[in-house]
Amino acid sequence: MSSGGKRLKLGMVGGGRDAFIGAVHRNAAWLDGTFELVAGALSSTPEKARASGKDLGLPENRNYGTWQEMLERESKLPPGERIDAVSIVTPNHMHYPVAKAAVEAGFHVICDKPLVHSSQEAADLVAAVKKAGSVFAVTYNYTGYPMVKQARHMVRNGDLGAIRKVIVEYNQDWLATKLEEQGAKQAEWRTDPARSGVAGAIGDIGSHAENLVATITGLEIAEVCADVTTFVPGRRLDDDGNVLLHYTSGAKGILFASQISAGEENDLRIRVYGEKASLTWHQENPNYLHFKPLGAPEQILKRGNGYLCEAAKRATRIPPGHPEAFLEAFANVYRGAALAILAAGGQAQRDADDLDFPTVEDGARGVQFIETVIKSGASSQKWISFGA
Amino acid sequence: MSSGGKRLKLGMVGGGRDAFIGAVHRNAAWLDGTFELVAGALSSTPEKARASGKDLGLPENRNYGTWQEMLERESKLPPGERIDAVSIVTPNHMHYPVAKAAVEAGFHVICDKPLVHSSQEAADLVAAVKKAGSVFAVTYNYTGYPMVKQARHMVRNGDLGAIRKVIVEYNQDWLATKLEEQGAKQAEWRTDPARSGVAGAIGDIGSHAENLVATITGLEIAEVCADVTTFVPGRRLDDDGNVLLHYTSGAKGILFASQISAGEENDLRIRVYGEKASLTWHQENPNYLHFKPLGAPEQILKRGNGYLCEAAKRATRIPPGHPEAFLEAFANVYRGAALAILAAGGQAQRDADDLDFPTVEDGARGVQFIETVIKSGASSQKWISFGA
Amino acid sequence: MSSGGKRLKLGMVGGGRDAFIGAVHRNAAWLDGTFELVAGALSSTPEKARASGKDLGLPENRNYGTWQEMLERESKLPPGERIDAVSIVTPNHMHYPVAKAAVEAGFHVICDKPLVHSSQEAADLVAAVKKAGSVFAVTYNYTGYPMVKQARHMVRNGDLGAIRKVIVEYNQDWLATKLEEQGAKQAEWRTDPARSGVAGAIGDIGSHAENLVATITGLEIAEVCADVTTFVPGRRLDDDGNVLLHYTSGAKGILFASQISAGEENDLRIRVYGEKASLTWHQENPNYLHFKPLGAPEQILKRGNGYLCEAAKRATRIPPGHPEAFLEAFANVYRGAALAILAAGGQAQRDADDLDFPTVEDGARGVQFIETVIKSGASSQKWISFGA
Amino acid sequence: MSSGGKRLKLGMVGGGRDAFIGAVHRNAAWLDGTFELVAGALSSTPEKARASGKDLGLPENRNYGTWQEMLERESKLPPGERIDAVSIVTPNHMHYPVAKAAVEAGFHVICDKPLVHSSQEAADLVAAVKKAGSVFAVTYNYTGYPMVKQARHMVRNGDLGAIRKVIVEYNQDWLATKLEEQGAKQAEWRTDPARSGVAGAIGDIGSHAENLVATITGLEIAEVCADVTTFVPGRRLDDDGNVLLHYTSGAKGILFASQISAGEENDLRIRVYGEKASLTWHQENPNYLHFKPLGAPEQILKRGNGYLCEAAKRATRIPPGHPEAFLEAFANVYRGAALAILAAGGQAQRDADDLDFPTVEDGARGVQFIETVIKSGASSQKWISFGA
Repeated sequence: MSSGGKRLKLGMVGGGRDAFIGAVHRNAAWLDGTFELVAGALSSTPEKARASGKDLGLPENRNYGTWQEMLERESKLPPGERIDAVSIVTPNHMHYPVAKAAVEAGFHVICDKPLVHSSQEAADLVAAVKKAGSVFAVTYNYTGYPMVKQARHMVRNGDLGAIRKVIVEYNQDWLATKLEEQGAKQAEWRTDPARSGVAGAIGDIGSHAENLVATITGLEIAEVCADVTTFVPGRRLDDDGNVLLHYTSGAKGILFASQISAGEENDLRIRVYGEKASLTWHQENPNYLHFKPLGAPEQILKRGNGYLCEAAKRATRIPPGHPEAFLEAFANVYRGAALAILAAGGQAQRDADDLDFPTVEDGARGVQFIETVIKSGASSQKWISFGA
Repeated sequence: MSSGGKRLKLGMVGGGRDAFIGAVHRNAAWLDGTFELVAGALSSTPEKARASGKDLGLPENRNYGTWQEMLERESKLPPGERIDAVSIVTPNHMHYPVAKAAVEAGFHVICDKPLVHSSQEAADLVAAVKKAGSVFAVTYNYTGYPMVKQARHMVRNGDLGAIRKVIVEYNQDWLATKLEEQGAKQAEWRTDPARSGVAGAIGDIGSHAENLVATITGLEIAEVCADVTTFVPGRRLDDDGNVLLHYTSGAKGILFASQISAGEENDLRIRVYGEKASLTWHQENPNYLHFKPLGAPEQILKRGNGYLCEAAKRATRIPPGHPEAFLEAFANVYRGAALAILAAGGQAQRDADDLDFPTVEDGARGVQFIETVIKSGASSQKWISFGA
Repeated sequence: MSSGGKRLKLGMVGGGRDAFIGAVHRNAAWLDGTFELVAGALSSTPEKARASGKDLGLPENRNYGTWQEMLERESKLPPGERIDAVSIVTPNHMHYPVAKAAVEAGFHVICDKPLVHSSQEAADLVAAVKKAGSVFAVTYNYTGYPMVKQARHMVRNGDLGAIRKVIVEYNQDWLATKLEEQGAKQAEWRTDPARSGVAGAIGDIGSHAENLVATITGLEIAEVCADVTTFVPGRRLDDDGNVLLHYTSGAKGILFASQISAGEENDLRIRVYGEKASLTWHQENPNYLHFKPLGAPEQILKRGNGYLCEAAKRATRIPPGHPEAFLEAFANVYRGAALAILAAGGQAQRDADDLDFPTVEDGARGVQFIETVIKSGASSQKWISFGA
Repeated sequence: MSSGGKRLKLGMVGGGRDAFIGAVHRNAAWLDGTFELVAGALSSTPEKARASGKDLGLPENRNYGTWQEMLERESKLPPGERIDAVSIVTPNHMHYPVAKAAVEAGFHVICDKPLVHSSQEAADLVAAVKKAGSVFAVTYNYTGYPMVKQARHMVRNGDLGAIRKVIVEYNQDWLATKLEEQGAKQAEWRTDPARSGVAGAIGDIGSHAENLVATITGLEIAEVCADVTTFVPGRRLDDDGNVLLHYTSGAKGILFASQISAGEENDLRIRVYGEKASLTWHQENPNYLHFKPLGAPEQILKRGNGYLCEAAKRATRIPPGHPEAFLEAFANVYRGAALAILAAGGQAQRDADDLDFPTVEDGARGVQFIETVIKSGASSQKWISFGA
């Protein structure tokens, strides 16, 4: 893809001092020169917001104290000067108000996941996006990996035959102890229902796992049976969940997500079993995709090679063996959004593969997933219908 | 261990022509010169039994047409000449009658798994073994691996802290198609309820997974929630099962077993997560045990090294890097049984680690596991108590 | 590290249309907002140079047709406006003239490897850098990986004891066929002595291997014995080299580099054996460092963890399990250079670890390595002294 | 293969108490019921020999004090009762006298490697074997692995195209310290020139590496350039060697063998690069063979599958995923010898693949390799002709 040397203008909400994901979003936006960061309201208090903006070299007049101020003042700038898009990288509870206001103010949005706190908010936001005609990307960043796109291609292409079973897992250990009481900001808000929502591990990482399955396989969840646990005493949200899934096609699934799995770092992996073959992908070593056909040798497909599908090839920047990783995958979501914004403005030619990124509808389905799993975890009924 | 050059005498039931596991049992029994095969009733018809015995060079007068004949005639031979133990390697439905008769005839028994068809049969057999004072080993062979013994040692030793979660899985693909209609004997009986029992994949391999967890962790199952599936149309038993587990200690578990997981061969693996560290072991590359402590580098413990526990060291025969595998682990069950037999006869000194092998009680618990999972699979109740 | 929101200004020579490494340098420079690209002479003809600059959105008045023009015109801009540094990403033969002129014009330089064509040119350039007091970084990018810094730390710290043996290898297959005759620009200049220098594979990738050993171990080469081969008929430079090494300490080494090793992508790996332990690192999966002490379990150290050395921790941007890769390592060279430039200008505090990057002296030693290996390859004398 | 239930009779020389490899040979001989051990002269003194025989339950009248006694007395027993073959598992210096006498006494021989101390002895023994018409197997056991046979098949079949380069390595650490002074019998004789021969690591493990290359590729060494080192002060033989190789075909090679490579256990691995593809195999995880074609995904071929060549399929005993390892590969050498013996005696049908095992000629070439490498190590001449 090429945007013809033009960089889109980005305003960021959240992601200031003490934040983890803000810097990732900024580097992802900068990569390939896709966006330039021209404005921000980078923290929840005006003082900290402005100090954070100064750290980053934001021009003083666009280093805003509040997101409301940013939306209002940027709206009044002439097109071509004002920001094209708002990037929302706050704790979860701020996604809904900021996203809704940004969309209604006519901006495109790139928003972190999970999208919002409830499926009502999600439906509301989907409607607002539809009405405004905005480009709205949700940073389910793991689906930005080239080999995830290749996996999706192979499933769609029938290389696996009909899908029978999916195993997806996301194991971490960073909340194995009560980190939220040790001054760790990331742990604090993620274990606080007011800021994180109804779920802990299920929302923070289980929703990534759900999105990965949906992206690769297109399977739709019919019903779930969940065992949701809080292992660390006194913690206010779940830190572990094991879920059985029935898909509408008759396929079966297992999804587990944990933040107390000692020794695991960011262990997201998926196995997809079809009638003819299976696929395995592991996020911690993301440049490889294992394809195992019945009765033939296992194959290892590797990023950057000519034998991959177009979408996988476009999602890569450097040759085979020169590993790409988390940042590039994240940047692919930003790049997809940028192309969609340019296409919306008539400046780039629309192309399905280039515009490939998770949308507000993916975000809304993710919220339903979280709600359904939490409901199932609390229920003595074996199966809970999806979105019930 | 040393048995002082004395080889015990073994009679085998089943394991003739067309069988898979018979040759494994024989090599396992021969290894280290532990047993010699002196008698057999190797197949279900006298003709095939005798032809199979001839293949193996059995002496004509101990190459029996039926197991009844073998037990009767061997019983009448003088001690020191007659067989010490019976090895039962038939399809599952024959385990109960042969094992019971062998025990009652005063022989020690090494029996394949799953032990019997029902928990009633199991209880009956446990009682018979107790009454006779027999040595009775069940070939849950995977627990014979040195690194499984090391894993058990580390859990017992508290190296992981209290166990929070266990993930055990056993994935195969050999029944991904309807092999039982293609003349494959192994597939035929394993998918036939009359010979295999109430379960397919859950019994054949799920029970190995159960035994592996119990052996390593000592955790006791409180209740299960199972999703049991037959994917191949027309198949009469399950070929896939996904199970959530609650242990009595409060630990949680996920167990899955499948014989339709395209591309997987004999993919038994376990992960044990404690408060302080976790362990991972994979049967297909069995000489390694991964230990992952919180906040410190992952460690790979390797078979044959001086830093391992005594039980792991005794269960190995050759130096590090000279890989041992399936056969040696299987042989460790036979060696354990042989030492117990010698100890019972006053010929070897009893030693807890050397006598370490799965017993009839392990076999009985395995039958309960199968029954409970099958019951849960058919139930709309979320949790089914173990052994209910 | 923080540069206080200030971005340094970069002018690039080479790296326009058809180039591979130019985009890598740009992304590496942009990452973390370290540099901004404000000027360029991006190709060897003025037309192509300007077209390339337009692709990237360079301002028209700083999108130069030639590097001479860029140096001249930028020199005349006031400090604070003119470029701080020149990034040289041309084919090898242009490194010397551009670098020398840039240094003499008072600019700092980031230059690709191998540094120049001959040790005479290298000595000349070292002297010029010394005279000018420039910051001069050579993009031996593999030494920018955090786990390479950790390896260096552990060797220096004595964790391996005295080093006995080093095995370093760099295997690729992209020149397994005569790609240079198929219109591939990258292959064309790399196999052309006029543009690539005296060596092919030995210069292009063997020199990376040399630098990796020197960086991690500090060992100095005493003499080499090389077997240098051109496998593809008609190729004008070597495409494979196997080298035995004697280090001045008495340690022994094996270094091999190949561009015809079918099936290998960018397979750079190193093993360092000491009296007490060894280290293994593999570029294609760069977030892990294997440490194998005598008589104790192997350890896997992982990027981003608190137990790593300061230099490894500073060289990382995101948490464990969120893989970083080639780009971030490359960016670490740019970041090191930027901090040195700021320190030189009094704007940042000097800190040995932050300023850690390959220098012009490393580049000069690399040129000596290439010359010595090529000389040895052509000689019937067994050992050739380093730099002889 | 089937030997029709008949077990061949084996007499063993060496392998008594304190030995390592004796028990491996016995288990390898027993496996599948191929041989039974009926006689032995198991140690270098009559007392220890007889005590060792008693440990193993040898009949008293065939538990010999010396190998001379065994050969003499067994020769006089009637055919069908006397031993069919002699297994020689002594330290190296005894291979020649025992093997020669055994062959001349009309016995078949299975002999450990390296064959003898000098190429003169080797030539002499080859002549004796030819004259006697004996079956003579050398336990280069690593070539017994099924996936090594598959590798050989693929090279012969042209799947890799013409071979360009081979990298073979054998890294261990058990002699990283001066173990020979700590009462370790294995270390004592292996570092003693009188018993081990002219080489240490080069003979003990380098010769395995040489055999592996020859077996898989059929390449013939033209000349070598070796760097041979003794790292541990006071050791009397080499403990590390790095060798460059020229093959007669024009292919190039690197072979390295070390017993001081801290942290390595029995790390034998080979990479074969052809014009079209490459192969990789690693002894410590021997059930897998990696095949990497140019421009297509890497493949992992796995032991026991229907897609393998006949020789690989015959060399396996159990299904895929049930790992086989060192012992089974070793047993394949014994099985090959047994079938050759039966074929020689008219009792089995000759079949090239079944009779596949390393012969006395392989052993003789191995001795030449050792001599040439040691000569090169001591020479200042760059290339030494093979066998010069």
